[in-house]
Amino acid sequence: MAKELLHHEVGEHVDLFLLIKSATKGIASNGKPFLTVILQDRSGDIEAKLWDTSDEQVKLYQPETIVRVAGEIHNYRGRLQLKIKQIRPSNPQDGVHVSDLLETAPISKEEIAEKVTQYIFEMKNPNLQRITRHLLKKYQTAFLEFPAATKNHHEFVSGLGYHVVSMLDLAKAIATQYPSLDKDLLYSGIILHDLGKVIELSGPVSATYTIEGNLIGHISIIVNEIGKAADELGIKGEEIVVLQHLVLSHHGKLEWGSPKQPMIKEAEILHLIDNIDAKMNMLDRALKRVKPGEFTERIFALDNRSFYKPTFHP
Amino acid sequence: MAKELLHHEVGEHVDLFLLIKSATKGIASNGKPFLTVILQDRSGDIEAKLWDTSDEQVKLYQPETIVRVAGEIHNYRGRLQLKIKQIRPSNPQDGVHVSDLLETAPISKEEIAEKVTQYIFEMKNPNLQRITRHLLKKYQTAFLEFPAATKNHHEFVSGLGYHVVSMLDLAKAIATQYPSLDKDLLYSGIILHDLGKVIELSGPVSATYTIEGNLIGHISIIVNEIGKAADELGIKGEEIVVLQHLVLSHHGKLEWGSPKQPMIKEAEILHLIDNIDAKMNMLDRALKRVKPGEFTERIFALDNRSFYKPTFHP
Amino acid sequence: MAKELLHHEVGEHVDLFLLIKSATKGIASNGKPFLTVILQDRSGDIEAKLWDTSDEQVKLYQPETIVRVAGEIHNYRGRLQLKIKQIRPSNPQDGVHVSDLLETAPISKEEIAEKVTQYIFEMKNPNLQRITRHLLKKYQTAFLEFPAATKNHHEFVSGLGYHVVSMLDLAKAIATQYPSLDKDLLYSGIILHDLGKVIELSGPVSATYTIEGNLIGHISIIVNEIGKAADELGIKGEEIVVLQHLVLSHHGKLEWGSPKQPMIKEAEILHLIDNIDAKMNMLDRALKRVKPGEFTERIFALDNRSFYKPTFHP
Amino acid sequence: MAKELLHHEVGEHVDLFLLIKSATKGIASNGKPFLTVILQDRSGDIEAKLWDTSDEQVKLYQPETIVRVAGEIHNYRGRLQLKIKQIRPSNPQDGVHVSDLLETAPISKEEIAEKVTQYIFEMKNPNLQRITRHLLKKYQTAFLEFPAATKNHHEFVSGLGYHVVSMLDLAKAIATQYPSLDKDLLYSGIILHDLGKVIELSGPVSATYTIEGNLIGHISIIVNEIGKAADELGIKGEEIVVLQHLVLSHHGKLEWGSPKQPMIKEAEILHLIDNIDAKMNMLDRALKRVKPGEFTERIFALDNRSFYKPTFHP
Amino acid sequence: MAKELLHHEVGEHVDLFLLIKSATKGIASNGKPFLTVILQDRSGDIEAKLWDTSDEQVKLYQPETIVRVAGEIHNYRGRLQLKIKQIRPSNPQDGVHVSDLLETAPISKEEIAEKVTQYIFEMKNPNLQRITRHLLKKYQTAFLEFPAATKNHHEFVSGLGYHVVSMLDLAKAIATQYPSLDKDLLYSGIILHDLGKVIELSGPVSATYTIEGNLIGHISIIVNEIGKAADELGIKGEEIVVLQHLVLSHHGKLEWGSPKQPMIKEAEILHLIDNIDAKMNMLDRALKRVKPGEFTERIFALDNRSFYKPTFHP
Amino acid sequence: MAKELLHHEVGEHVDLFLLIKSATKGIASNGKPFLTVILQDRSGDIEAKLWDTSDEQVKLYQPETIVRVAGEIHNYRGRLQLKIKQIRPSNPQDGVHVSDLLETAPISKEEIAEKVTQYIFEMKNPNLQRITRHLLKKYQTAFLEFPAATKNHHEFVSGLGYHVVSMLDLAKAIATQYPSLDKDLLYSGIILHDLGKVIELSGPVSATYTIEGNLIGHISIIVNEIGKAADELGIKGEEIVVLQHLVLSHHGKLEWGSPKQPMIKEAEILHLIDNIDAKMNMLDRALKRVKPGEFTERIFALDNRSFYKPTFHP
Repeated sequence: MAKELLHHEVGEHVDLFLLIKSATKGIASNGKPFLTVILQDRSGDIEAKLWDTSDEQVKLYQPETIVRVAGEIHNYRGRLQLKIKQIRPSNPQDGVHVSDLLETAPISKEEIAEKVTQYIFEMKNPNLQRITRHLLKKYQTAFLEFPAATKNHHEFVSGLGYHVVSMLDLAKAIATQYPSLDKDLLYSGIILHDLGKVIELSGPVSATYTIEGNLIGHISIIVNEIGKAADELGIKGEEIVVLQHLVLSHHGKLEWGSPKQPMIKEAEILHLIDNIDAKMNMLDRALKRVKPGEFTERIFALDNRSFYKPTFHP
Repeated sequence: MAKELLHHEVGEHVDLFLLIKSATKGIASNGKPFLTVILQDRSGDIEAKLWDTSDEQVKLYQPETIVRVAGEIHNYRGRLQLKIKQIRPSNPQDGVHVSDLLETAPISKEEIAEKVTQYIFEMKNPNLQRITRHLLKKYQTAFLEFPAATKNHHEFVSGLGYHVVSMLDLAKAIATQYPSLDKDLLYSGIILHDLGKVIELSGPVSATYTIEGNLIGHISIIVNEIGKAADELGIKGEEIVVLQHLVLSHHGKLEWGSPKQPMIKEAEILHLIDNIDAKMNMLDRALKRVKPGEFTERIFALDNRSFYKPTFHP
Repeated sequence: MAKELLHHEVGEHVDLFLLIKSATKGIASNGKPFLTVILQDRSGDIEAKLWDTSDEQVKLYQPETIVRVAGEIHNYRGRLQLKIKQIRPSNPQDGVHVSDLLETAPISKEEIAEKVTQYIFEMKNPNLQRITRHLLKKYQTAFLEFPAATKNHHEFVSGLGYHVVSMLDLAKAIATQYPSLDKDLLYSGIILHDLGKVIELSGPVSATYTIEGNLIGHISIIVNEIGKAADELGIKGEEIVVLQHLVLSHHGKLEWGSPKQPMIKEAEILHLIDNIDAKMNMLDRALKRVKPGEFTERIFALDNRSFYKPTFHP
Repeated sequence: MAKELLHHEVGEHVDLFLLIKSATKGIASNGKPFLTVILQDRSGDIEAKLWDTSDEQVKLYQPETIVRVAGEIHNYRGRLQLKIKQIRPSNPQDGVHVSDLLETAPISKEEIAEKVTQYIFEMKNPNLQRITRHLLKKYQTAFLEFPAATKNHHEFVSGLGYHVVSMLDLAKAIATQYPSLDKDLLYSGIILHDLGKVIELSGPVSATYTIEGNLIGHISIIVNEIGKAADELGIKGEEIVVLQHLVLSHHGKLEWGSPKQPMIKEAEILHLIDNIDAKMNMLDRALKRVKPGEFTERIFALDNRSFYKPTFHP
Repeated sequence: MAKELLHHEVGEHVDLFLLIKSATKGIASNGKPFLTVILQDRSGDIEAKLWDTSDEQVKLYQPETIVRVAGEIHNYRGRLQLKIKQIRPSNPQDGVHVSDLLETAPISKEEIAEKVTQYIFEMKNPNLQRITRHLLKKYQTAFLEFPAATKNHHEFVSGLGYHVVSMLDLAKAIATQYPSLDKDLLYSGIILHDLGKVIELSGPVSATYTIEGNLIGHISIIVNEIGKAADELGIKGEEIVVLQHLVLSHHGKLEWGSPKQPMIKEAEILHLIDNIDAKMNMLDRALKRVKPGEFTERIFALDNRSFYKPTFHP
Repeated sequence: MAKELLHHEVGEHVDLFLLIKSATKGIASNGKPFLTVILQDRSGDIEAKLWDTSDEQVKLYQPETIVRVAGEIHNYRGRLQLKIKQIRPSNPQDGVHVSDLLETAPISKEEIAEKVTQYIFEMKNPNLQRITRHLLKKYQTAFLEFPAATKNHHEFVSGLGYHVVSMLDLAKAIATQYPSLDKDLLYSGIILHDLGKVIELSGPVSATYTIEGNLIGHISIIVNEIGKAADELGIKGEEIVVLQHLVLSHHGKLEWGSPKQPMIKEAEILHLIDNIDAKMNMLDRALKRVKPGEFTERIFALDNRSFYKPTFHP
């Protein structure tokens, strides 16, 4: 199999099938139109420019199109760019499919489903177990395919489910260390905390915000769903209010979009677990792009910090 | 009728039936127990101390008890205090009822109900009209009796309904001035924006926060209710999402507890109208307690500012 | 009459007389000069680029020049742009005048003058009335022609006077709702609050900041003028200090350029009325440029928010 | 001469004539009234309590009364307190005068006047010189007697003039080091920067804020005075606007009460000189109260920091 | 064994040997001295007051004295208080020792030492291993006895070592989940991150800040020690700089006292692990004091939040 | 001697030898490579563009190369630019050396060394004197050549030493004014405060941050060095901790990178002196580029303010 996009060095020649992730039209300062495209395969994505684009080309190189590109990896102000030398749309004979080029979670949808099911199975509190199972079932297909965000972290196919599984495993380890934690509540909160994303975002690929996503947001969306589910299932009891609180408060601070700060121990821990898993994902992805002894690009979601990759790491 | 509590000058003698609004036990620095009580009649409330209280007295002077008090109005560090000289619980022969002593809105529950009903009647958008009428009906009793808050503004019986009516009247005037505003949306948003308080707070008198109020908050509570009501009434359409957005965003900023900032013109205006009505209420109540040429106490909810009452006001 | 500039759809052809509002020289990345021009008629303004401009062209296309332009409306990253196909300076035979193309307030200078005069006439406090009339008379010509700002809101001919009239009407409606407000003080504060702009800004068209505007600012400028006017008219009394306070504090917070926060009820309300009128103006202008179901451009002065135009508005 | 108040150690006996700086009535938690008094002589002030005060005593021990007090210096939570054992009002036979007990600047009014006059004399720019001399003359008596503030720094008789003289000397030294500074502008700005305090504050002793001080503030007060003075003296020219800017911006930031940030080099330096002189005054006064090896009380105006007095200082 | 202090209910009678943790002298508002003492046994601490204390009593009831106390547990404004009925100093015959009453870590010093030694043993990077072992050995006695802080979290005997062991166990679990983490670096950073506390604080019991602690702080203290140790051991290499960075940045933000934000992946994770362990400790201690269905006291170090203890926890 | 770079007016022709300070490769929007170069001589620096650069040219025009350039000074958006008409690398026959073109401090290395030595000589405290002399000697060569920063202020050859000398002179003047200041401590703190820059930065010309500079920072670097030096010299005593504190806290606030706020009087003054000298340097450099009656470019390190150059300055 050919070496994938991000496994090439700066200066190296590239000849690959790639997927157009986004394409933005611009007018160059010589008055001619150009396209800024983000091209990707499973290894990650890179920016490139198509100069002097005709109207026909603009139509040809839409998002979600597969193209064959020859070019060279450049480093422009510390960011990688692909200088395109040749480009053509792929055709059926090429035998390349969108799913071959999409970045996806490192574990399959089936594994995700199985692991989450196992965690639900382990719950002992029937109210939490029933409501979690009910909502997961209702949105299972999307849950297993959506990314966890449009950018920043876990922004790939099945990113949402993968993020949840990582958090569950981390929660289990932490709850072993601190046995006073209510594992059922924590698992239920983790499984549901971002489930509103399946309504907030447009779909598994090239996700954008829906009107409802923009105006209501994934937090309030799923809190409403928990309330409706409890009514449908006839569940009464403090678990519902507490579970809604865990979801409401999982961004940790009002200014980060949670209308309440955590006021339950498991809510505080859920927020911290979310934080660790998101940051590890961002850091691993950024550090993958640099060599030991170098600094990464500035990472916006980490206070615009740049991270150093030590030379002595094993 | 006797001169009411707050109509007395500093230094004046007082002999009145008053309602205990709250009673907090303390241990004085001589080791003896005392009670800090807030006493009120319709004109407002005042703090007083009961020294060297026996256990029996503590039981006697519980919140929501009517007492007959003789004493004197003092000024302690710029705040009024009542120095109690004599106190006894009232008895049936006194013929004084709790409702005689509660501060209430300046218009009756019936007027409030009538005015709100009229505004709903004027709406032309059937989706907004039906959902507003449905929820108001569901919580009408509490809506007409609850305060709008536990402190700061409209913290009296029927304060919630009175606040809504003032805002509706203000909205009507503003919409006349700026005809591009969607009056139906604005009216509906105003009527529902604080309706979650009937679940957030414990009741019409001496309101405290419920568990659900603390953990979920009135904003999310009523947003959920709007969602459920739309389902029950079979209403579909963007009105529901937009109306939920108006309620979600009515605190104006994330750090003030709204999980979304206003992104609809009417949401922005609803926030501003809420602001004006709350501030006018706070200012009028604080200025009522001082004379021309004086400054009010610092008002916590107005950035701890102290306001001056000019000497030349008509 | 031809369809005006902003009434064209994206993609539509345009052939209009337009006024150059500003022209900024740049050097394109091919090393050749170009001009970024803002073109306007009464309906609003749009950005356009002139590529490969000769020195002669740069001289020809100065601000405040009328040009005839043929081109096409584009959408570039969510902002409208005009792609120029042909351009020439207008000549006397075209019979087009600058005043035909300037965006102006929706009511005439005469109407503004008449309305403000009427409000002054209604005042009962002679001190406030005299000082307001005196200062208005002193700066009347500029007051009726200047914009209220260089950008953000009411940035058009007679914008200052129009903003004041809108605020006066709003104040009247609010004072009807809250009769404890001192209308004379509020009217006087509104009429004078931004009058310093006639010294802060350079003139009615293409306004920039003067040295005095930059170093002293419109707030301190007019506060000084009030002091001088009181001396000249021999007015003594608290009204002067209180009126100066209303003007000083009308930005509402220290960090927004007011050296004092509002400490008078009418000062607080003046700030809120200013806020509402400025925001309604910004929102209406931004929403006019989008269709139902779309979001506006981000509005810098509204915390960089983007606003949604619902599909169901009447 | 007897050892002064603050020259006593903790635990030492005290028998002194002292001036009551302030007296605040309280109700003790045993229900009996008490007075918290601040007592001072030239060495500084100390807090003390008078327990079980009769109405007569409250009248006797008003601010600005001289008393003879015997007692002991205590240390209460890191603050000095005077435990009063005996107290009586002074009588004419005691031969003690208020001026004997007031803390005053370390140099006399005459010296202050002479030094400021000398600095004005050295100015070469006639516009700056004339306007400075005019305003100083207008307010000279108060300028030489007022404190620079009600608390925090230079809060003693002649504190304002002393602060100005210290700043002038410092400015001269700094301008020698950085000859590009315009000394005339800097001297004029320093002399006038706080002159508005003579209207903002009530008087030289036990100063409080006047209505005008509260609503307008010393910055705007003196900026207005500069404008009026320029008119009276017929001075035209950029010096007036620039001088007003120096005064307007001398608090350095909008949130510290300046409506403009410094935009002139001398304005920036004036702000920094003000800062150094105020901080040195606060630090010297706080460190005077502790011994080497100890920390001072927290100083509110220095971000609530506590400062350490090294043991090795010469 | 008698029921320990915090295992008593509100209202219950107490008769116990307790240790005086701190004793602060006050003057009551009747003018008489009193003592506020914090009394503790292994279960935790409680506040109490001693009224009308003679000088002799003040000397008797110094910190670190053992007393026998009879009294009753009260609830005062949501905080527990002990109302003392009888108190006497313990004598040798009582057979009670300070160490019987000190709150200590739930695991012994020996276990802490063994676990930390084991983690050092597992390291593969010799530079990190040697420097960690060297510094731990140098300060081992204090490391095993000091608290981790004077208040907020792990403020008990051996708190520092216990905090480090908990963090190491958590780090091991997290590194299993995210194998890209450099475990050696993480372990070394955890073991050393707070080791400067042994110089910053005064000792294992009733710890206060030393001069060096106040002026330099534990972060800079141990960073210096790492530098010196590297010199002494002749270790060169990037490990030293990176390890110093982990310690420097472990507070996470500049405003929390780290002069650098984390710029190494393991530094970010170290900060998060520290956060989790400190918060779990604070939350468990606060929740231990309330019953299901109640809210804790506000916890200053958790943004002053109050936490709810659900009724349904297993 | 030819007129130097920044002494030319906008529009004037330039023909000079200049040094390339930095060269950044870009891809123009026509797809062709270009270089953005910063060119300098002793008078300062200016930006220029080289269009359509070949690979050969990119190699030719590296940083620290001397070039001969003919062109014209332009004003682009308020910033000066040099429009290059001709450019060639210099050759040995030109007889121009790098040192001829580097901006350097206005006083020589020898003068700097002499002045600093004199200040050390004046110290009376032997501990402070010995440690200061020791560290200065250790890093003397770099101290005399390094800039004080990579940008913002004193970013020229010998900038570090020049900044220290200016601060020492200023400190001497201030200590004369406030004799309670410990001059020895202040001088020692000033000499050492930025000495860590010789390790933080890469060298005297075109300085960038080293790995150690990025991860540890100049503050912690030199604090460690002070600790080691005290050990080597066998100096004990509070001077070491206090001197380390002065260096640690010299940025004044935690959020500006100091792990402790100043808690010693001399630490506070050191911070203020640093502030004045840095600001004067920035302001003089910015104002040198504009004419009277103009505003400077916005200065990032001065809160992005733009400064006005009055027309009346002597």
